[in-house]
Amino acid sequence: MKLVRFGEAGREKPGLLDTGGQIRDLSGVVPDITAETLASGALARLTQADLSSLPAAADGQRLGPCVGNVRNFIAIGLNYADHAAETGAPIPAEPIIFNKAPSCIVGPNDDVIIPRGSQKTDWEVELAIVIGKRASYVGANESLDFVAGYCICNDVSEREYQIERGGTWTKGKGCPTFGPLGPWLVTADEIKDVQNLSMWLDVNGERMQTGSTKTMIFNVAQIVSYVSHFMILEPGDVITTGTPPGVGMGMKPQRFLKAGDVVTLGIEGLGEQRQRVVAFEENPPDTSRGKREPAQQV
Amino acid sequence: MKLVRFGEAGREKPGLLDTGGQIRDLSGVVPDITAETLASGALARLTQADLSSLPAAADGQRLGPCVGNVRNFIAIGLNYADHAAETGAPIPAEPIIFNKAPSCIVGPNDDVIIPRGSQKTDWEVELAIVIGKRASYVGANESLDFVAGYCICNDVSEREYQIERGGTWTKGKGCPTFGPLGPWLVTADEIKDVQNLSMWLDVNGERMQTGSTKTMIFNVAQIVSYVSHFMILEPGDVITTGTPPGVGMGMKPQRFLKAGDVVTLGIEGLGEQRQRVVAFEENPPDTSRGKREPAQQV
Repeated sequence: MKLVRFGEAGREKPGLLDTGGQIRDLSGVVPDITAETLASGALARLTQADLSSLPAAADGQRLGPCVGNVRNFIAIGLNYADHAAETGAPIPAEPIIFNKAPSCIVGPNDDVIIPRGSQKTDWEVELAIVIGKRASYVGANESLDFVAGYCICNDVSEREYQIERGGTWTKGKGCPTFGPLGPWLVTADEIKDVQNLSMWLDVNGERMQTGSTKTMIFNVAQIVSYVSHFMILEPGDVITTGTPPGVGMGMKPQRFLKAGDVVTLGIEGLGEQRQRVVAFEENPPDTSRGKREPAQQV
Repeated sequence: MKLVRFGEAGREKPGLLDTGGQIRDLSGVVPDITAETLASGALARLTQADLSSLPAAADGQRLGPCVGNVRNFIAIGLNYADHAAETGAPIPAEPIIFNKAPSCIVGPNDDVIIPRGSQKTDWEVELAIVIGKRASYVGANESLDFVAGYCICNDVSEREYQIERGGTWTKGKGCPTFGPLGPWLVTADEIKDVQNLSMWLDVNGERMQTGSTKTMIFNVAQIVSYVSHFMILEPGDVITTGTPPGVGMGMKPQRFLKAGDVVTLGIEGLGEQRQRVVAFEENPPDTSRGKREPAQQV
């Protein structure tokens, strides 16, 4: 299945892309595509529901992030040997784990905002894993059983914040809008070989990144297993798995995003994203959360 | 107010500590103390409700983490000059930001589990900030307006994972049970001067850490402001603010936790925590999440 969340930011409805490319409204069937619904097993039960009678969503819908209410948004650093080389870093002996703030998650085609005063905003096409079941100390031989599916992530990065501001990479990875996820959450059963997917990223139509998940240093099964030995992974957690060569920081001279640029990116079987890059404005829109549960009045 | 969450792990009810030290059941007034209820403004409205008629909770309740459904659990590294010295690290020029996995959050008196095979599990008494309002690019002169309150955090840390396993500190900070929060979420209005609170931590009754929030390098107002320039802070996010001297890693010889140890810790005005240290067992209990919203059936 290709699951989507569509509609206004923060009020997305769940949907499903049918074989004709039409979004079907799933809101009569599941409340949303979130940590909570993944945990409840709703995804598995969807495959048994009669989807042909679901209403079609109106055309021209905004797509939200394909999973809502993400709590733990993890990233793996330098996971492609040739990308490690272009950044001047040695090939890591173990996966490098860092975090993106969950509040940076936006829809696949939402604007990417250059942070206030930033000079070094960069792009990274990545395969992201969406966890479907609680995973703690799972082996690589079983870890794929804990994956609900996959989506594209643009691991947008501010290189000065990431590298020159002290401490860990966190500062340059979680700025508002730095985590476009989607367009679809493609369930794992639809991906024949997750380690053989081609991927690409263009800036203003010019090809910047070309790669394949087959050149990952640590594969998806190894990553899920590895991370689960350091923390409990929960349904709805997202792990983005590193980027192939071709980031702006690696170019000579370096090249970074500026307002007006358009970034397009895609991964085989997972669709495409398209972001307009915009300058920072005060009071950016709050597109960071999924639906809130209504609070009881006091 | 001193807010608590009490009852079985994952099914805690919200409560309030009355002036006599009795827990009053708030579940008829607010659904929980979580990101969602903080965002809804329920906390502010609580002060106007008539609390004297609330039912008393039964004695002997387990306390859960004092805030539920935390999404972003941030920590500030090396934020006490004398702790930086004991670890051999220079005093940071800017706050060091890293993440603890939200799934590591447990109640203040729950067991701390030594990770499988771990030899270097360590303690850190810390003041934690609970965010009450969405904060993005806020100045230090206004940032305290975005704080709902404070609680104790034991920033339990595995030093080998943190330092010797490559990459960022994430690996040693988010293991299951590494984030006891509570006993109370003390609202900011009850803390007269957050930069003058004494703090301590004992292992088996022996004093290990003694300190005060007045020796922080970056104070609470600066931290909230600083972090908000790199990511949107959301209601219910937790920032733990660093530890004073006296961690096991800093001792000569180094000393780490072992099964059977009892850790007690406290901060002036914020109560006390008490954790039993236990060995790793397969299938640790899932105490990591607050109440799940019931998922609709397919």
